Amino acid sequence: MSETTSKTTLADLLAPQAVALEGDLERWLIEPGTPDELAEAMRYCVLCGGKRLRPALVRLGAQAVGGDADDELVARAAVAVELIHSYSLVHDDLPAIDNDILRRGLPTAHVKFGEAMALLVGDALLTRAFGLLTETHDVRSPNLVAELASAAGAAGMVAGQIADLELCDLPAGAAGLAYVHDRKTAALIRAAVRMGAIAGGTDHVSLAALSDYGLQLGLAFQAVDDVLDATGQAETIGKTPGKDARAGKRSIVGELGLQQAQAAARDLSARAVEMLAPLGEAADTLRQLAALLAERTY
Amino acid sequence: MSETTSKTTLADLLAPQAVALEGDLERWLIEPGTPDELAEAMRYCVLCGGKRLRPALVRLGAQAVGGDADDELVARAAVAVELIHSYSLVHDDLPAIDNDILRRGLPTAHVKFGEAMALLVGDALLTRAFGLLTETHDVRSPNLVAELASAAGAAGMVAGQIADLELCDLPAGAAGLAYVHDRKTAALIRAAVRMGAIAGGTDHVSLAALSDYGLQLGLAFQAVDDVLDATGQAETIGKTPGKDARAGKRSIVGELGLQQAQAAARDLSARAVEMLAPLGEAADTLRQLAALLAERTY
Repeated sequence: MSETTSKTTLADLLAPQAVALEGDLERWLIEPGTPDELAEAMRYCVLCGGKRLRPALVRLGAQAVGGDADDELVARAAVAVELIHSYSLVHDDLPAIDNDILRRGLPTAHVKFGEAMALLVGDALLTRAFGLLTETHDVRSPNLVAELASAAGAAGMVAGQIADLELCDLPAGAAGLAYVHDRKTAALIRAAVRMGAIAGGTDHVSLAALSDYGLQLGLAFQAVDDVLDATGQAETIGKTPGKDARAGKRSIVGELGLQQAQAAARDLSARAVEMLAPLGEAADTLRQLAALLAERTY
Repeated sequence: MSETTSKTTLADLLAPQAVALEGDLERWLIEPGTPDELAEAMRYCVLCGGKRLRPALVRLGAQAVGGDADDELVARAAVAVELIHSYSLVHDDLPAIDNDILRRGLPTAHVKFGEAMALLVGDALLTRAFGLLTETHDVRSPNLVAELASAAGAAGMVAGQIADLELCDLPAGAAGLAYVHDRKTAALIRAAVRMGAIAGGTDHVSLAALSDYGLQLGLAFQAVDDVLDATGQAETIGKTPGKDARAGKRSIVGELGLQQAQAAARDLSARAVEMLAPLGEAADTLRQLAALLAERTY
């Protein structure tokens, strides 16, 4: 694997998954009857690229348990997870929250379409995620909705955002930081792997292993994000660098310093790989992904 | 029925349904792990009363097809519909949209908790609605999620809000007004009756009749709302009267004048009752509700 890793980048690994996703997004994003102006704004917020890490994790989660990444429910789960991610970015960027003007190198939704439209686009994307999981009559649909709602909701991503904004009491130092990162970032990344596994027909042992993998991977991802915020260029990361640090937000870099934060990202990534021990070769791409994630520069 | 109607008010009719709802809201609103401050804000936005019309319609929709209003899935559907209604009020009240400071006689969520918390509370309520429909393992769950997402989403309530804010092209006059009211108000009211019927085990004929009833009832409800906005007192209606009219929003009163708008509300309500012709006595409460709705003063 080390030889492959030295040649392959994270972008290379994610690219084939993203190709399948784009077609599925085109197919399922816009419901008939959506006003043109709303559809345009939804497409702007979703079809403007991004790493597509989370939907790739859904597909790779299904593969890791012997499922078919092109199964319709797996594909729908991948789209649903990406819509939840997109909605959260649109709402987080709003003036009332982070007041960001740049996202993926483009004006954020409220800069481009106004605040009211951005708010409503976020609501539409969030709602659509659940709708598209249940348009197909599949007995696994309710489990996927429950997983996604739990990861995105009041004890998941919303809790993480509330904590990140210091709208709730939080322990000081590393414990508070872990609370935020578990919920704000790792919850959806873990749910993505889990949803892929559920849609792919997982057993309990594999699902538990993939949950642990998803958590560690999510924390590694956030650690790298903090490092890139501290060191990156706007052109590379597609958003304003240093903004989180200037906003006084908790970060691993702030907590440990840059070098230790980089080491933590590598440790978390290695731990993610270890969690996959119960799984066979079918999980190799997930292993490779974790290794590449720690080295990502975008 | 006329004798009963002369004595009963809409509040009397809704009260017993609301009692059951309050307990269910207490049970299912807050997930374990929700930060206290977020839970408090969610409870403020949901447990502060309101007519509870939509959840009553879920329960009565189930009864109308011979189902049990106290069945767990019916009860969950009632809570889910009320959470969608609550989320939409919280987001609509935000400064970026209607900038309302009073709701049900109390400060709106962003006045009370700040804009960031209000935005996130809305997101949490919207997400929770779908989560609580799928926590129970019931084969009817996916249908309920699909119904609710369709009514709430980009071709439903969000489209209605986009149109109401004139963020999309719309025909002039009555056609434009109908577009807004169908989506902004009637979509969720119709979905409430439909979800009750689906959870209650409806056949196709009854479901079609209840859909038509729900649409007419929703339009009647909005007509009365417009009349109350034009004539009501803040103490009675619990929000700032005349605000919609001053904001230049389309309304039936603006379109037809006050007297014709009142007549339209009565016509729509009568038409709602007619739509129930295929249903027997089990739908009597829905018939009574439609009659009382046209006379409501709150």
